[in-house]
Amino acid sequence: MMDGRKKKFIKELLEKPRLRHESGLYVVDGPKMCAEIPEELIEEIYVSETFLSQETDEALSRLIRGRGSQIVSEKEMKQLSDTVTPQGIMALCRQKRPRGLKEIIEGLKGKDRPGLLLGLECLQDPGNMGTILRSAEAAGADGIICDRGCADVYAPKVVRSTMGAIFRFPVLSVDDLKPACRSLKEEGFEVLAAHLHAEREYDKADLCLPSLILIGNESRGLTEELSSEATSLIKIPMLGKTESLNAAVAASVLLFEAARQRRKANGSRK
Amino acid sequence: MMDGRKKKFIKELLEKPRLRHESGLYVVDGPKMCAEIPEELIEEIYVSETFLSQETDEALSRLIRGRGSQIVSEKEMKQLSDTVTPQGIMALCRQKRPRGLKEIIEGLKGKDRPGLLLGLECLQDPGNMGTILRSAEAAGADGIICDRGCADVYAPKVVRSTMGAIFRFPVLSVDDLKPACRSLKEEGFEVLAAHLHAEREYDKADLCLPSLILIGNESRGLTEELSSEATSLIKIPMLGKTESLNAAVAASVLLFEAARQRRKANGSRK
Repeated sequence: MMDGRKKKFIKELLEKPRLRHESGLYVVDGPKMCAEIPEELIEEIYVSETFLSQETDEALSRLIRGRGSQIVSEKEMKQLSDTVTPQGIMALCRQKRPRGLKEIIEGLKGKDRPGLLLGLECLQDPGNMGTILRSAEAAGADGIICDRGCADVYAPKVVRSTMGAIFRFPVLSVDDLKPACRSLKEEGFEVLAAHLHAEREYDKADLCLPSLILIGNESRGLTEELSSEATSLIKIPMLGKTESLNAAVAASVLLFEAARQRRKANGSRK
Repeated sequence: MMDGRKKKFIKELLEKPRLRHESGLYVVDGPKMCAEIPEELIEEIYVSETFLSQETDEALSRLIRGRGSQIVSEKEMKQLSDTVTPQGIMALCRQKRPRGLKEIIEGLKGKDRPGLLLGLECLQDPGNMGTILRSAEAAGADGIICDRGCADVYAPKVVRSTMGAIFRFPVLSVDDLKPACRSLKEEGFEVLAAHLHAEREYDKADLCLPSLILIGNESRGLTEELSSEATSLIKIPMLGKTESLNAAVAASVLLFEAARQRRKANGSRK
């Protein structure tokens, strides 16, 4: 049996961004995601009796036998989970956030290739947020900087849609993206704002340079205030009558264009 | 007051793919989407009393005053809509599907550029489906071919996430994609399968040729059976530990690479 206060805490962690922020903890649900958590970030593991009786793979068995693992009843698991059909295993995890922009910039200095960062302004859809994290890791980006208008990356829906990237990929939260833009420009970064009214096509920009790509809110796009910090406005040319792309698609198309240009430059250097 | 049978029909249309398929009708919810429906596809419009008392733009006013428009009470609107907070206007629409692959192939013959089609196998997430439609229109593709394992494009969630592309972009439903692949190869198409184990990087493929790009299910990818119909397997190179991309992201990255190559080829021809 779980104690009542802990149960209440877990439920509140699922619902309240502020509690997640203050405690530095969050909840991960389901075997697929739990199996990906690095051991040092695990605080506690809750396993249902039924799940325990099933065969699982090695990573999960180790998790279940490990430190901080406890068995809960089916009923308790249902009470804890925010999904309609809980999958029998949940974890209480520690967040691993970069402490500041400095940490990200320092981290870049050890790498033998130009930095690639994404800045998100008021990106509100949790699914988009998770998808962008997944794309950013796959495209070889070095980190994401979110402003306070963005969905919390530790919200259950975001965590799920990252498919594990949340455990590995650095996401920094800042109040305002403008000072970050300025610091990065001082470090030699190009700041590229994805803007519907830009003249420059995104593939005409030299994305082999150290780059911060800015993506705005799903319906309003980037604010003019933040766009004015950019060294260049870029657009993805669109045919048909579509007015804009899904924000996660726009971010991914830009990130993978950077990856393509960098692969090509590396190939021709060899 | 709406008659009870009509109310039941609308509710069932929102829930039942088969009824949508048999009737050739579907439901569109909210002012933003309703304003985009081409007049000839509108069967009926339902407007709530409150919505009627609000100021609206010209496109919506014309819709409300037009043929087939009827006023319903707030309560009725709530009963009809599948959303928690109905937006006061809904439309009963006719589907505009291509009759077959022939119609798509004939349509391509009038165009002065190589065809670009997308084939979706068992793509099941409605949000992904809608996002792909939106990307495909914007990238200048000519149509999407879905197999019977895909989410119904006329499902409410898909319709919403297309942001209007559903009214303009041709989506063909077939039982099986293999015969479509064969017919398109006979027409001179390359069939490119997005495959995690492919050797060829997607940007090394000549996407200026007439192309059908195949995208598989969100978790399983393409079946080997369908992949074997491809003229080439391609992959999006991924860094980090990400195992795969979101399906809508993968489709969009490939479509916009085709658009980029085609823009570049056109530019150098001028």
